[in-house]
Amino acid sequence: MDYRRLEKIKRILQRRQPDLTLITDNVNNFRNLSAIIRSCEAVGTMEVHLVNNQQEKLYLINKVTAGAERWLTQTRHSSIVTGINHLKKRGFTIYATHLGDPEGICCAVRTLDYRKMDYTKPTAFVVGSEKKGISEEALENADYHISIPMMGMTQSLNVSVATAIILFEAQRQREEKGYYQQLRTSQEIYEKTIFEWAYP
Amino acid sequence: MDYRRLEKIKRILQRRQPDLTLITDNVNNFRNLSAIIRSCEAVGTMEVHLVNNQQEKLYLINKVTAGAERWLTQTRHSSIVTGINHLKKRGFTIYATHLGDPEGICCAVRTLDYRKMDYTKPTAFVVGSEKKGISEEALENADYHISIPMMGMTQSLNVSVATAIILFEAQRQREEKGYYQQLRTSQEIYEKTIFEWAYP
Ligand SMILES: C[S@@+](CC[C@H](N)C(=O)[O-])C[C@H]1O[C@@H](n2cnc3c(N)ncnc32)[C@H](O)[C@@H]1O
Ligand SMILES: C[S@@+](CC[C@H](N)C(=O)[O-])C[C@H]1O[C@@H](n2cnc3c(N)ncnc32)[C@H](O)[C@@H]1O
Repeated sequence: MDYRRLEKIKRILQRRQPDLTLITDNVNNFRNLSAIIRSCEAVGTMEVHLVNNQQEKLYLINKVTAGAERWLTQTRHSSIVTGINHLKKRGFTIYATHLGDPEGICCAVRTLDYRKMDYTKPTAFVVGSEKKGISEEALENADYHISIPMMGMTQSLNVSVATAIILFEAQRQREEKGYYQQLRTSQEIYEKTIFEWAYP
Repeated sequence: MDYRRLEKIKRILQRRQPDLTLITDNVNNFRNLSAIIRSCEAVGTMEVHLVNNQQEKLYLINKVTAGAERWLTQTRHSSIVTGINHLKKRGFTIYATHLGDPEGICCAVRTLDYRKMDYTKPTAFVVGSEKKGISEEALENADYHISIPMMGMTQSLNVSVATAIILFEAQRQREEKGYYQQLRTSQEIYEKTIFEWAYP
């Protein structure tokens, strides 16, 4: 372990956001899942939560993750409700990302513009699958439904794209509040993680 | 052509942003290219510019584009310099998206934070390939180098993810200025495009 690498590890850990996370609600496409994990890591997430009823094993594609999976923990849950409840108990607010219409004009589900919410509090986003979108259970159990405004003919964004746009809005808000300039994990977790990352 | 579809077409065309576009600098992965085109369409781009020296034919993946390619024109250029010059002549400012360090601390290329720029003027982004990133020629010919701040261990984002984050910053700025509430194409193009979209 050379000195510069250790310095880098410390610098990155000092920016980690233990209270920012994501649950994937049956995102079955491994390429999308891999891209999502890469974006999570890039904004300083420490953990992601995965719900996947279709595949027993999940495969990440290294070319797409760019190795990001090494730097965050992945927890699988047997259902979306279990996953959401786990995070609610820990004090997270749950935001289901969903199509729908921020202006409430043309469709039944009234969603909130993703830029109007406060993601500096403990925040967990739920994202859905390419085909089916987010499940009824996720919508029912979430605290808020948020959507990214769509200006074109197509109705939705690719899930890894939508995830990144929302995560970087959280990153923006947290940067503004100085969250990346202060240690936000406990000293204990900080030291434990340095050890794990530096001496694998 | 039913009435509601025609109304939708008109509503979308009234939001089109003729002065917002993108050049792909040898993005060879068709999946990424497809996701990029979907995001462009979603923010109201009318055209994308493609440079690709490796493949004679480009294939878009319909599952990934969600059909977005129908709603914007694609122009291929023989080189990135040709593409950039074409847009410069039309008054666009060229932003090369690039890794590098907004704070100018740790690497040679000094880039600007993507959130600090004004994308309400005629704006073209250049994005690079997964492996090689953006070319020297693109960097030299661009007006500005911009980057998205990276907080984690991985160095870069997936190109389709980075593109979407930047496009939605432009979308945000333009929405704030009311650009989606006023017709921004000429009346002539508006009418011509309605005709093309409604009666293919
Ligand atoms: C391709 S979309 C799902 C489309 C699906 N056919 C539906 O009707 O929900 C996949 C996921 O990406 C996210 N997503 C895509 N576009 C979004 C938008 N404009 N706002 C919020 N989330 C979006 C949501 O999590 C969604 O479940
Ligand atoms: C995977 S990256 C290229 C990485 C390449 N190894 C390099 O060193 O440039 C692919 C493209 O996505 C865009 N990109 C990725 N992360 C970015 C970031 N943090 N800021 C700006 N653009 C980024 C750039 O256009 C880049 O050329």
